[in-house]
Amino acid sequence: MRISALSTRSGVSVATLKYYLREGLLHPGHATAVNQADYDESHVRRVALVRALLVAGQLRVADVQDVIAAVEAQDVSLHEAFGVAQDALVPERDRSDPAHIEAGHAVDRLVKRHHLDVRPDAASKLLLADALALLTEFGFAAVVEDAATLVEYLVEPALDQARFEVAQVPQDATRGERLAYTVIGTVAFEIAAAAVRRLALEHASAERFGADRS
Amino acid sequence: MRISALSTRSGVSVATLKYYLREGLLHPGHATAVNQADYDESHVRRVALVRALLVAGQLRVADVQDVIAAVEAQDVSLHEAFGVAQDALVPERDRSDPAHIEAGHAVDRLVKRHHLDVRPDAASKLLLADALALLTEFGFAAVVEDAATLVEYLVEPALDQARFEVAQVPQDATRGERLAYTVIGTVAFEIAAAAVRRLALEHASAERFGADRS
Repeated sequence: MRISALSTRSGVSVATLKYYLREGLLHPGHATAVNQADYDESHVRRVALVRALLVAGQLRVADVQDVIAAVEAQDVSLHEAFGVAQDALVPERDRSDPAHIEAGHAVDRLVKRHHLDVRPDAASKLLLADALALLTEFGFAAVVEDAATLVEYLVEPALDQARFEVAQVPQDATRGERLAYTVIGTVAFEIAAAAVRRLALEHASAERFGADRS
Repeated sequence: MRISALSTRSGVSVATLKYYLREGLLHPGHATAVNQADYDESHVRRVALVRALLVAGQLRVADVQDVIAAVEAQDVSLHEAFGVAQDALVPERDRSDPAHIEAGHAVDRLVKRHHLDVRPDAASKLLLADALALLTEFGFAAVVEDAATLVEYLVEPALDQARFEVAQVPQDATRGERLAYTVIGTVAFEIAAAAVRRLALEHASAERFGADRS
């Protein structure tokens, strides 16, 4: 299909598609003439993945490029590529303060306690340390180690759910498609979980404070 | 204390504090002389709240201003102010496409099924619709209603947890402090839940795909 048809199919403007091509987020079409190329279903799927990461996942272009590179790399396993994609989902920031370093140690101990098979430098650990540092700073826990205990109850349900989600990954799909599926699953279920949490908090706030005008 | 002492106490540079003052994120100090003001513990707490929302919550300045306005408004109840703060946490985006509108209806039905006491226009509902639209688009569910069923299992555990978290809000604190506490709790536990989810997914991926080099 021509780029105009890809635009109609994917709901993304031609100008945006050309931007994706320039940034390497979308692989080039098959050249049919000067300034003309042919696109196929792999392009439709790729555009959907890029949009999901940019819009729903709120990733920066550079991080989407990392995920796409992992999708395209043929020499890394699906599991390794998933790690690269996961790391791209964690925002960079200064984490050199003592509270953060201490929280990092607490995360290491939590990972060990639960025998989690994750890379020592997995960026998700930094994200968990962010949360522990925040809970400690705002008095939810006296010390970082207590904050780690406070989130401990999250681990086993998360493992059950993760095993369920990973088992859903289609067996017959290509490696790139399976990675896209796991990344979208990570993003979409995370948004769903956050939204449901917030609705539940509003409900609980109505129960507790709804009648209180103070 | 002087602004330099507030800077030391809060770990935020004087330039950034002045920026917070200009943007109305930080309430003015008590003027002691021309170009000199006195700050107190309320300023230390406020700076911590603003930093948490900007850095950990990744909110835009305009959204932090909305949260701060809710913290300062004395004529709205704690529950209503919490609603304002929750809405500020949801990013704006175009949600006019049919998939989104259909997902919105599915969210309404889910809210009704679970008798959730939330405002009809709560922004968290838009966030849940984002996730349902994404799950449908990427083939996790055939139709939006199935996607809603797919996330159904999240509701009851979220309610238990929300009731627990809301019960932790200090009784003796001021309204502003209690609101700050609930908002930080929302943000911090959400980050923790997302991070634990991702660690669990990496663990499950290692179990399932770790040995697979394809």
